[in-house]
Amino acid sequence: MADGAVSEAGGPSTLAQGRLRSLVERIERLEGDKAAIMTDLKEVFAEAKADGFDVKILRKVIRLRKQDTAKRQEEEALLDLYISAIGGL
Amino acid sequence: MADGAVSEAGGPSTLAQGRLRSLVERIERLEGDKAAIMTDLKEVFAEAKADGFDVKILRKVIRLRKQDTAKRQEEEALLDLYISAIGGL
Repeated sequence: MADGAVSEAGGPSTLAQGRLRSLVERIERLEGDKAAIMTDLKEVFAEAKADGFDVKILRKVIRLRKQDTAKRQEEEALLDLYISAIGGL
Repeated sequence: MADGAVSEAGGPSTLAQGRLRSLVERIERLEGDKAAIMTDLKEVFAEAKADGFDVKILRKVIRLRKQDTAKRQEEEALLDLYISAIGGL
């Protein structure tokens, strides 16, 4: 609620205008980067399909590996917690 | 269907294995980049909120600007098409 929305006069202040413009530009740049990555991803899956791989199974492999990574990270975090709880190894 | 899925013997060929590994790595790298961008986007919206801007309206502004850009691009493409159809200006 700092210098954000509205000035004393009830209209947007120049500061808020500049800040808003900057936020919009940053969001649009990130959205653009995201769109580029989505296009790249589509292309890789299209390549995989052209090579005769089953895209549905490929997606499943990616998902399983992600779950496995998340599980391992969770276990490592828990391990660290337990170790620090007993004052170290 | 090239060297993709299965070798003569019915099992995956070494070539297909290497190719699959490469595809998986590329996808995972892109997914990682995408996740980083999503985090950045979340942070920008959190900043906007902290500054007192209405995130819902901000999202609407972004959407309207995107629609406007798409419309202008469509019009320009149509203009180019008409011009080339009459053999140039």
